[in-house]
Amino acid sequence: MPVLTLADLQVRLGGTLRGDGGTLIRGAASLDRADGDQIAFLVSAKYLAQARASRAGVLIIPESLNETLPQACLAVANPHAAFARAVALLHPEPGLPVGVHPTAVVAEDADVHAEARVGPHVCIGAGARVGARSLIHAGGVIGPGAIVGEDCLLHPRVTVQHACVVGDRAVLHSGCVIGSDGFGLAWEAEPEGGHWLKVPQIGRVVIGNDVEIGANTCIDRGALDDTVIEDGVKLDNLIHIAHNCRIGRHTAIAACVGMAGSTSIGAYCQISGAAMISGHIAIADKVTISGGSVVAKNLRAPGVYTSVMPLMPHEDWLRNAAHLRHLDALAGRLKALESRINDLDKDDAE
Amino acid sequence: MPVLTLADLQVRLGGTLRGDGGTLIRGAASLDRADGDQIAFLVSAKYLAQARASRAGVLIIPESLNETLPQACLAVANPHAAFARAVALLHPEPGLPVGVHPTAVVAEDADVHAEARVGPHVCIGAGARVGARSLIHAGGVIGPGAIVGEDCLLHPRVTVQHACVVGDRAVLHSGCVIGSDGFGLAWEAEPEGGHWLKVPQIGRVVIGNDVEIGANTCIDRGALDDTVIEDGVKLDNLIHIAHNCRIGRHTAIAACVGMAGSTSIGAYCQISGAAMISGHIAIADKVTISGGSVVAKNLRAPGVYTSVMPLMPHEDWLRNAAHLRHLDALAGRLKALESRINDLDKDDAE
Amino acid sequence: MPVLTLADLQVRLGGTLRGDGGTLIRGAASLDRADGDQIAFLVSAKYLAQARASRAGVLIIPESLNETLPQACLAVANPHAAFARAVALLHPEPGLPVGVHPTAVVAEDADVHAEARVGPHVCIGAGARVGARSLIHAGGVIGPGAIVGEDCLLHPRVTVQHACVVGDRAVLHSGCVIGSDGFGLAWEAEPEGGHWLKVPQIGRVVIGNDVEIGANTCIDRGALDDTVIEDGVKLDNLIHIAHNCRIGRHTAIAACVGMAGSTSIGAYCQISGAAMISGHIAIADKVTISGGSVVAKNLRAPGVYTSVMPLMPHEDWLRNAAHLRHLDALAGRLKALESRINDLDKDDAE
Repeated sequence: MPVLTLADLQVRLGGTLRGDGGTLIRGAASLDRADGDQIAFLVSAKYLAQARASRAGVLIIPESLNETLPQACLAVANPHAAFARAVALLHPEPGLPVGVHPTAVVAEDADVHAEARVGPHVCIGAGARVGARSLIHAGGVIGPGAIVGEDCLLHPRVTVQHACVVGDRAVLHSGCVIGSDGFGLAWEAEPEGGHWLKVPQIGRVVIGNDVEIGANTCIDRGALDDTVIEDGVKLDNLIHIAHNCRIGRHTAIAACVGMAGSTSIGAYCQISGAAMISGHIAIADKVTISGGSVVAKNLRAPGVYTSVMPLMPHEDWLRNAAHLRHLDALAGRLKALESRINDLDKDDAE
Repeated sequence: MPVLTLADLQVRLGGTLRGDGGTLIRGAASLDRADGDQIAFLVSAKYLAQARASRAGVLIIPESLNETLPQACLAVANPHAAFARAVALLHPEPGLPVGVHPTAVVAEDADVHAEARVGPHVCIGAGARVGARSLIHAGGVIGPGAIVGEDCLLHPRVTVQHACVVGDRAVLHSGCVIGSDGFGLAWEAEPEGGHWLKVPQIGRVVIGNDVEIGANTCIDRGALDDTVIEDGVKLDNLIHIAHNCRIGRHTAIAACVGMAGSTSIGAYCQISGAAMISGHIAIADKVTISGGSVVAKNLRAPGVYTSVMPLMPHEDWLRNAAHLRHLDALAGRLKALESRINDLDKDDAE
Repeated sequence: MPVLTLADLQVRLGGTLRGDGGTLIRGAASLDRADGDQIAFLVSAKYLAQARASRAGVLIIPESLNETLPQACLAVANPHAAFARAVALLHPEPGLPVGVHPTAVVAEDADVHAEARVGPHVCIGAGARVGARSLIHAGGVIGPGAIVGEDCLLHPRVTVQHACVVGDRAVLHSGCVIGSDGFGLAWEAEPEGGHWLKVPQIGRVVIGNDVEIGANTCIDRGALDDTVIEDGVKLDNLIHIAHNCRIGRHTAIAACVGMAGSTSIGAYCQISGAAMISGHIAIADKVTISGGSVVAKNLRAPGVYTSVMPLMPHEDWLRNAAHLRHLDALAGRLKALESRINDLDKDDAE
């Protein structure tokens, strides 16, 4: 594990030193758990009491904080981001030696950069390309003609299927699948019923730079054109992105979200967990979708959208939900009452 | 890539030629993106303007279309299906050489057909069988006694667990798991709480012919009897099928659907994305479930069923959803009003 | 396959013999399908008619059952649990020979117990530990410094990432991922928009004893502290557990559930399929969540909670759901009517 002084850290992260720049830092931790040789952070004065009680040797604090703290501090504009950078310096990911593990199977005409790191039981297909400093952990499969950019990190058991493109600095988590077939079916009617005919999916998945894709997330290749994930998109675990979707730059999507075919999401959106997005719709930039919501129509304006039934004790739910099947009738009865009361009022006035 | 003439294509697909049968076709594309050596298609006259503007060299059109188009055309009864077949001819899937890759581990008594194709790091267990022309891509695991039929395509990193059966012409996508244990638990009470005891799952998964199973989809083996997927079923990505379910022939299920134990779905159903289906229920043939719906009871009649809270701007949702916790009270107030107004009416009448 | 007499079984499981202890048992099956050399079970007198019609040679029955059955019987306090144990004796899981398969890649300083069983193409990282009698099937990846306890069963293609801990007697199903990165992002604003910065995730996943984890389920490592799964927890397939969650002992979670970051669930809870649980909340012991429900707030009391829109024929849904966007207005109209009718009443009374 690397050891840094607070002064080293300031050189790398910027910000203003408050306290002893020689303080040694051997790791990062939360305010509650940090020890004297660890660094923690707070984002605002809200956490002052917790910070004062922390045994952390060093704190990253917001530069707007005027209070004095017992710890050596680095004051920065964005403590969360500075802390993220500090953690990366103090806790490097487990790596692999440069080169190709002898158990990996690499096609003769694959172009694996001399500085790439290819782990055990990896398989790289004909004509595939892996860029400089990229690391492919055990069991990864890079299909024929696929491209993985530079400085990528592929965790164990990632599949990038044929002809798909992954940009630079991607992080692909274990079990994710890039370029599975879209769910393309043509119905063939027959006298006694009919059957589905598979429509071969010949588009690609094209992923920009600085994209992260979660564990067991699946991104289908386009039917004819491509499925596109733009720069800086962050996808969590167990997400389904169907064929021909487009996700705009710097949009973040939480776990268990499903996105049906040919839908586009704008830039800077935030889709919370388990939201389900229908096919063939367009969502504008800067839209936020609440967790568990179902989006079935175009959303043209930025803003927060929700479609969730509120949680209730089950007995209450039984009583309340029963009326949902008769809401139209209930609204009709209300209207009828309004009209009767208008008549009564009129009668009274006469 | 194969090159075909339009006349070649007509021989394979049937239909009527309109224009030059010698036109060369090197690939398929969408109307918008096709070039002069590519084929595109339209399903109806609705796309006529787009077709006229397309640079595609060849079009597959509905035979009912009377309009003349600038391109060489193949007129057929079902353009979507014909196009699917054309794509398959023009864009064959990347294959593997016939035989077993030297890094694959195949049990001595496994029966792998001489014309099968077994990729790198595949593992085939004792007594397993792989049929003619089936292709198992890198990292696939076929458990002891499992059967994979003929002409199957198993994408990288598929698991078919022990004793499970996959029919002919299956397409199994990367990361899918056939035959994981069902979630079978017996509660053992104890003075201070209790614990769950695992119920071993000794049924199989039995999959018919012409089935497609999406990436990272999981189908659990039966507890005692089998989980059954009938012929022609199409499953998208990230679907969960619990133990002892049965899915009727030619039913299509979109991504992120969950199906709890011992439920049966009829033939020719369409289950849209993220629908959740409870255990121990039966769904009739030709039922359609809307995306995101929760099905918790038997559905005996064909038709479309929905259970989705509509999406709203979050501020509207806050205002509206609050009343859902008091819907029963609201209905009660309405009833009380009706009764009071009846009394008033009576008073007026007296 | 082992063959047991009913008397053998009684020695192992306890209970009272009713009938011939010498009856041979070669397997377990359901009441409907069992043959004369198979054992089946019933949990209550409700299944008496089915039991009488069963061809099973042996039945496990509740000790409270007074009726005489044609089969040899073992009467026990908890028939479901006793049957589970009988199945385990009669149908052992397919195993592997003791030792490390020659195609496995095991780091020199990894500590793999001499009685462990390591399958083909498994990869075990530096400093990792695998306990006695644990079985790691084909394609499993155990990261550097990770610990797998004793008597564990890892099905094919499981990932346990670096430094994570799995207790004794765990069952991990195919494709599950233990220790993927949490979805930790810091926003860095820029004049023209901004981007997400990855926050390295340096916590672990720590899993207790007797835990089962379903196929393709993902458990993220903690951001700084650990994600904790306590003893006896049972997780079904395709579940997402985010960073820093804690799941209390003997809680069972059905398939397709998502759990956002830093949420804790108590002991003895039951979370039904596809429930979605927000981040940073706490759920008490002995809470049951209905399938498909969204939990977005703390639940401090045991009980059953639900948030599901009821399923309707689509035409009904269209009519009813339209009012949900105007429920607040509808409630307002009701209130106005109440006030008007009060005035009318008063007028009448004057």
